Amino acid sequence: MSIFAGFGSDNHSGVHPDVLRALRNVNDGYVVAYGHDEYTAQAMKQLKEIFGKESAVFFVYNGTAANILGLRSVTDSFHSIFCAESAHLTVHECCGPENYIGAKLVNIPTADGKLTVDGIEPCIIGIDDPHMAQPHVISITQATERGTVYHPEEIRTLADFAHTHRMLLHMDGARLCNAAAFLKTGLHELSGAAGVDVLSFGGTKNGMMYGEAVVFFDQNLAKNFEFIRKQGMQLTSKMRYISAQFSAFLSNDLWLRNALQANEMAQLLAEQLRSIPGIEISQEVQTNMVYAVIPNHCILRLQKQYYFHRFNERTCEVRLMCSFTTQPQDVLRFAEAIRKTIGEK
Amino acid sequence: MSIFAGFGSDNHSGVHPDVLRALRNVNDGYVVAYGHDEYTAQAMKQLKEIFGKESAVFFVYNGTAANILGLRSVTDSFHSIFCAESAHLTVHECCGPENYIGAKLVNIPTADGKLTVDGIEPCIIGIDDPHMAQPHVISITQATERGTVYHPEEIRTLADFAHTHRMLLHMDGARLCNAAAFLKTGLHELSGAAGVDVLSFGGTKNGMMYGEAVVFFDQNLAKNFEFIRKQGMQLTSKMRYISAQFSAFLSNDLWLRNALQANEMAQLLAEQLRSIPGIEISQEVQTNMVYAVIPNHCILRLQKQYYFHRFNERTCEVRLMCSFTTQPQDVLRFAEAIRKTIGEK
Amino acid sequence: MSIFAGFGSDNHSGVHPDVLRALRNVNDGYVVAYGHDEYTAQAMKQLKEIFGKESAVFFVYNGTAANILGLRSVTDSFHSIFCAESAHLTVHECCGPENYIGAKLVNIPTADGKLTVDGIEPCIIGIDDPHMAQPHVISITQATERGTVYHPEEIRTLADFAHTHRMLLHMDGARLCNAAAFLKTGLHELSGAAGVDVLSFGGTKNGMMYGEAVVFFDQNLAKNFEFIRKQGMQLTSKMRYISAQFSAFLSNDLWLRNALQANEMAQLLAEQLRSIPGIEISQEVQTNMVYAVIPNHCILRLQKQYYFHRFNERTCEVRLMCSFTTQPQDVLRFAEAIRKTIGEK
Amino acid sequence: MSIFAGFGSDNHSGVHPDVLRALRNVNDGYVVAYGHDEYTAQAMKQLKEIFGKESAVFFVYNGTAANILGLRSVTDSFHSIFCAESAHLTVHECCGPENYIGAKLVNIPTADGKLTVDGIEPCIIGIDDPHMAQPHVISITQATERGTVYHPEEIRTLADFAHTHRMLLHMDGARLCNAAAFLKTGLHELSGAAGVDVLSFGGTKNGMMYGEAVVFFDQNLAKNFEFIRKQGMQLTSKMRYISAQFSAFLSNDLWLRNALQANEMAQLLAEQLRSIPGIEISQEVQTNMVYAVIPNHCILRLQKQYYFHRFNERTCEVRLMCSFTTQPQDVLRFAEAIRKTIGEK
Repeated sequence: MSIFAGFGSDNHSGVHPDVLRALRNVNDGYVVAYGHDEYTAQAMKQLKEIFGKESAVFFVYNGTAANILGLRSVTDSFHSIFCAESAHLTVHECCGPENYIGAKLVNIPTADGKLTVDGIEPCIIGIDDPHMAQPHVISITQATERGTVYHPEEIRTLADFAHTHRMLLHMDGARLCNAAAFLKTGLHELSGAAGVDVLSFGGTKNGMMYGEAVVFFDQNLAKNFEFIRKQGMQLTSKMRYISAQFSAFLSNDLWLRNALQANEMAQLLAEQLRSIPGIEISQEVQTNMVYAVIPNHCILRLQKQYYFHRFNERTCEVRLMCSFTTQPQDVLRFAEAIRKTIGEK
Repeated sequence: MSIFAGFGSDNHSGVHPDVLRALRNVNDGYVVAYGHDEYTAQAMKQLKEIFGKESAVFFVYNGTAANILGLRSVTDSFHSIFCAESAHLTVHECCGPENYIGAKLVNIPTADGKLTVDGIEPCIIGIDDPHMAQPHVISITQATERGTVYHPEEIRTLADFAHTHRMLLHMDGARLCNAAAFLKTGLHELSGAAGVDVLSFGGTKNGMMYGEAVVFFDQNLAKNFEFIRKQGMQLTSKMRYISAQFSAFLSNDLWLRNALQANEMAQLLAEQLRSIPGIEISQEVQTNMVYAVIPNHCILRLQKQYYFHRFNERTCEVRLMCSFTTQPQDVLRFAEAIRKTIGEK
Repeated sequence: MSIFAGFGSDNHSGVHPDVLRALRNVNDGYVVAYGHDEYTAQAMKQLKEIFGKESAVFFVYNGTAANILGLRSVTDSFHSIFCAESAHLTVHECCGPENYIGAKLVNIPTADGKLTVDGIEPCIIGIDDPHMAQPHVISITQATERGTVYHPEEIRTLADFAHTHRMLLHMDGARLCNAAAFLKTGLHELSGAAGVDVLSFGGTKNGMMYGEAVVFFDQNLAKNFEFIRKQGMQLTSKMRYISAQFSAFLSNDLWLRNALQANEMAQLLAEQLRSIPGIEISQEVQTNMVYAVIPNHCILRLQKQYYFHRFNERTCEVRLMCSFTTQPQDVLRFAEAIRKTIGEK
Repeated sequence: MSIFAGFGSDNHSGVHPDVLRALRNVNDGYVVAYGHDEYTAQAMKQLKEIFGKESAVFFVYNGTAANILGLRSVTDSFHSIFCAESAHLTVHECCGPENYIGAKLVNIPTADGKLTVDGIEPCIIGIDDPHMAQPHVISITQATERGTVYHPEEIRTLADFAHTHRMLLHMDGARLCNAAAFLKTGLHELSGAAGVDVLSFGGTKNGMMYGEAVVFFDQNLAKNFEFIRKQGMQLTSKMRYISAQFSAFLSNDLWLRNALQANEMAQLLAEQLRSIPGIEISQEVQTNMVYAVIPNHCILRLQKQYYFHRFNERTCEVRLMCSFTTQPQDVLRFAEAIRKTIGEK
């Protein structure tokens, strides 16, 4: 019997049929490589309708690259980048940012994955002192690695703080769609309109196959990005296939429908878990993640049937993810398995 | 009237229907991300059948990364890498290798894109002198950027030379399939069996959408590659889609059929060009590229209808590429256009 | 009236007359550059008498380089290095380590600048997970940036812990002499003999003009250091002048006499400060540093006459340094000034 | 009998007595570290009198760092730097520039070490093409590694060419003094006044112990240099000792007197060599280097008594250097030894 991987990550699901169809639809004929094609022009048009005419948008292969190369474009090697201690950027990129940018990641403890001015402010030290890394970027994740979201006004507050200190605000938007679905806002309201300077806009976790967009809300920040992307091993030759995916993703509210489905399934899962004695939901469930503390023996047994991760390998807090393909019966069956495991104690 | 891009690059063609079908065939259900899935296991099995059980194989997104990360794994920042002056590695990666590896690329002039021991030998200097970059890798391209191929015994000679000098032999095999099709050999005969240590095995130019393989013929060389790939922004989350492409590519001789078609079309094109007075074929046509010297006024007029590149922006030598989708009528129509343009002088 | 800089840093003092004399003594005649000279041979002999015949020793210009290049030699870009949150390495090198090595510095909070197994152990996570930086080095500072020292058995405990986890122990010994003077031990007892793998051995703060030594206690760790040093901009051409300084420094117990003087003056200063109401000594005084909390208004007034730093620009804890040139009357005069300032409130 | 090292390198000589005296003269008392001291202020004043008030000047430890950090300040990782094939930058820095800057060094063949517009112009390709390194800096060496010098108008021509193409002109001035002594010009005439943007101004080869200056003729180019220097491991703590050396070096024409002596001795050596049958002077002797082709058996015998290098380990062209300490009798004795060795054939 194979292990059910659906709650392990939103990367474990496949690709939405509309996206697959889009790949086929652009397959015929010759088009110039590296983005000089009509499909890319069309995707860029759609993205600029969302993120504004002043924005500069570029495709890369994945979120790691979107974050690292986006930050690389606006950061020098003697800068520091402030991020939550739990940020993917600092925990799960195998020190790619340090290696590629040179800069220092300053990890700020948070309870819920969300940075605040109060958390950052004491770290703004050493300005103009050549011995010290120079504060330059605040990087937030929307939705956070803890499944929580920043409200537009919270983003604005961080942006104003950043700009007041001549810093920039970067957003890792691998799950921006899930945040927007939760908040019932548009994508721009949560990024450029709220003061974000550079955004990684992700699609892979929400129904695409590969491909992310780096969005600069001020084109001056992007002036070397073409070189940085190529040198950074992230210029795809057959770009029409990333473009086609984004076009489909942004058409007919696909991004929103997928995100809503994932979020709803997380709510259902949380509801089920709350009803099980001995399990504690450990983070507010706002998007497609449920964090819960589960007894260790249950984790060990459940992992024989279900693939999922502990948040920290040393604790009993687990991360359960839903995706656009998660179905209510998947959730109910999983909840049943948990119930059973708890009872077996 | 749009410009015909088919002769501009083998990246201008689409994706083979078998490859597209494979993407659909693996789309259902949940699988663990980052390569821990059955489709990746299957592709790895096929690759190891070709490249040997001792090999270690990893997928990355594109050829730039396959070359840079493959070399990064076996090279330190104080090493030098010998390559042809025309190598993609040194000309068309926006100094990605220098930036990511630190090492020095030593460009060796060649007439036909092929390195020889005679060309490399005088550059083996400064051994153990800390002031000088230490010779460490010979990187060859198969087929070369000039469309020529290395015969297996030529590769063996370079490999022996490299190993005698405690160096490694790297092969950029973005068009390894075209070389094998020309030589009527297998893929392993031209790489591991001929002494290559690290291979970039490309599929994108020959019918795939994205994805390349880095093949280490000695697993010891690969011991850190998992970290290097992740840190290098090249670990794809939904890896099943690269794996599925490779599985299709390696099934039913698809790689070979595609390469043969591209090569044959280049022969047809060369034959046509040879029949046109005033045009000189400037490199031996062995794979899917035709290099020709064409009068400047023709180039300028042709480029209004056909997209193609000069080999060097300052000369009249042009590069014409065929791909697995090129059809005889495309070639004949293009030849006719050239003939007409020449006549118009 | 000029500001008295003597308590600002042990870098504010000059060079010991023995060291200056040594520079003159090696000045005549021609010697081969880059360390192939008899004076360097002599200094190396002295260093190996101290640190063991198995050690490999190299000179660089300064402590920044000793730390960064020493670590670079034993670390890959996907590794993590554990250090105290207050370590010079992470606070005062302008993210040089991240930039040059690529690795991640994991900052561990400490009360007194000293790492413990309990502090490090929870950070040893993600082994063999390619998403995460791989634990590789523990870096300690002896004496710490807080003026405290590790006892030999504390170093041994950290070394054993490191080695058990296939990690290495690095020591920033910019003030190793001061620690040895305090503990009444030899230099080797506090480094190689206690399990340290790589040491930065500093002289500049204790009477030299420039020059530090990188000591590898296992020569295998040093096999590429010649290249790393040259590439790292730290190979001095006229090396005889660093060598001569070290020879003098290691002769007639100069290193020890200088360190004792500096340490004693710190004790005197601490004693004076303890007698002043309103001032709190905030770290145990073991070497040549005194940390004290002083009312803000006093700091502001004192800084008009005396140059010194706050430990953190946002607090009233100040760092007062003594050096081998500090004299009792300097200390008494300074204490008097503090007393006066306190009284003026 | 020891080997005479005096003709091996101008780094083999000691330090001028005026420079040694200056070290002693600044030794007393406390001064603030890292350049915030009166001796540094004095040296900066002297340097700005020479190089202009608009210049920004910084001290580093050595020439490797002056070149690499100076270039790092004005170059991005996707740029290319044009230099002579024989430039120290590309031959003898163990690929430090590639490693630290990321950029590509484009080696241009020259007969005499001097770049010309005709040599560079064909390499200015790929502008705005993200696949290709972007031409950004021309780096010349004055005097060249071949002992030849650029006349001011030659520098101006290169500077104009660079600026016309939105590039910068960098000068490695490790032997700028020797060039100025030969041309009977000032230092500024050969650098800033001739259009140079960034200069490495060397003193170590001409009588100093250690220390070089990076001079930016436009302060905007230097705006991040303080951070780059610190991060680049090149901020000396006890800076007064570099400053004092430069002050002495620039006083009483010491730099000029030393350079004249070295140059004159090279002329004497060349004159002697010309009188020996079988020896060919292979480069014009303009500064303190003599290049000569000497029969192989003579080289082998001479190297038992005299330390010197072949220009290329595979040829019989040797490099003979004079310095400010070279005396006529040294030259005559060496010439005699050569004559004897030739005769012994």
